Amino acid sequence: MSSEVQNLFETYARLLDADRLEDWLDLFVDGCHYEILSRENVAQNLPLSLMLCDSKDMLVDRVMSLREANIYNIHVDCHILSFLHVEEIEGVIKAGCNYAVFQSNQEGESRLFSVGRYQAEIIRQHGVLRFKKMRIVVDTGAVLTLLATPL
Amino acid sequence: MSSEVQNLFETYARLLDADRLEDWLDLFVDGCHYEILSRENVAQNLPLSLMLCDSKDMLVDRVMSLREANIYNIHVDCHILSFLHVEEIEGVIKAGCNYAVFQSNQEGESRLFSVGRYQAEIIRQHGVLRFKKMRIVVDTGAVLTLLATPL
Amino acid sequence: MSSEVQNLFETYARLLDADRLEDWLDLFVDGCHYEILSRENVAQNLPLSLMLCDSKDMLVDRVMSLREANIYNIHVDCHILSFLHVEEIEGVIKAGCNYAVFQSNQEGESRLFSVGRYQAEIIRQHGVLRFKKMRIVVDTGAVLTLLATPL
Repeated sequence: MSSEVQNLFETYARLLDADRLEDWLDLFVDGCHYEILSRENVAQNLPLSLMLCDSKDMLVDRVMSLREANIYNIHVDCHILSFLHVEEIEGVIKAGCNYAVFQSNQEGESRLFSVGRYQAEIIRQHGVLRFKKMRIVVDTGAVLTLLATPL
Repeated sequence: MSSEVQNLFETYARLLDADRLEDWLDLFVDGCHYEILSRENVAQNLPLSLMLCDSKDMLVDRVMSLREANIYNIHVDCHILSFLHVEEIEGVIKAGCNYAVFQSNQEGESRLFSVGRYQAEIIRQHGVLRFKKMRIVVDTGAVLTLLATPL
Repeated sequence: MSSEVQNLFETYARLLDADRLEDWLDLFVDGCHYEILSRENVAQNLPLSLMLCDSKDMLVDRVMSLREANIYNIHVDCHILSFLHVEEIEGVIKAGCNYAVFQSNQEGESRLFSVGRYQAEIIRQHGVLRFKKMRIVVDTGAVLTLLATPL
């Protein structure tokens, strides 16, 4: 199971980096929950999230609006993922890993954009693993105003 | 065995990033050796280490002094680990991997803090893998004066 | 097979970081192809590569010239590799992963040097996996003028 979970995260990152956002949506179940929070807020138990889609429709809308209202900085992402922590509790797989996302601009300059941790809940649907919940806790709260594309 | 070693490193990094230093201590056997060296010193065969605890008691003391004399810069760490190299020689597992540690300050700004390589000796004790020796060879010698928490 | 591919990439990175370039050459088959391209060029289907060795002899020459004409900046590399994507098509293994390379200078200062993606073709020769093709697509086009040692 562990390598299957790893493949799911690998696909998640690869599709984002290739700007294949529509394919990336397929990795989520219908009643999914996608949320980005700063570590500071999580530590203080503050509910404010920086990006929140609590259904797949909202996530689809988000991607569609990125395609149509393309006013954010053009960049490419490069996700680097660290070792996975996986545990299964009553049929739900909980998996987490640290990430670093680097962004490169059109001049080919790369910089660290965000570090933090993925905390996912994963279920099996029609034989394949899909994200039911993706919660991203971001250490790099300072640049979150620049957040446009999903992490 | 390889995935068990990977889990040990994953736990090591996750506990440090969550500031669970007391739990992190449990990953070491009693007669453990924990050492941080700069790559430059290793290359020149100079014995000077930047942090050296050659028993578990010293490591416990180190954590306790961090808790009590909290005068270092408040930050959170994010460890990113690369592929593991694992070999077993006469019952001792030797395992190594590159790491990058990013630090985020209280303003939510993240930066590269240190890159280098973990070189560990691991034994099985009471059925679980534990670190007997952790040697960290640091490429980033320049910032080691800022070193307070374990890498 | 997947863990064997991972070991090959791990060895690739470890030998480069240890400046063991001659041993690193052993990871390639005779009729190998090694190429570094910028992501921008790939997207526009431009054939210009930033480093191109289309036989093992050329790769050997490249390493030899690095040893003899040592006029580039002295540095050490640290490769961090992300999750692998592996598929086998008619006996050829195609494998890819994102990477981040950090360079540290002689003052012990580390910085992000390059991020991008390895895209490899791997075959089994005399029982072991070797690179038949290594194509490195680099997001960080800006610093490629500084490129001397292999990525």
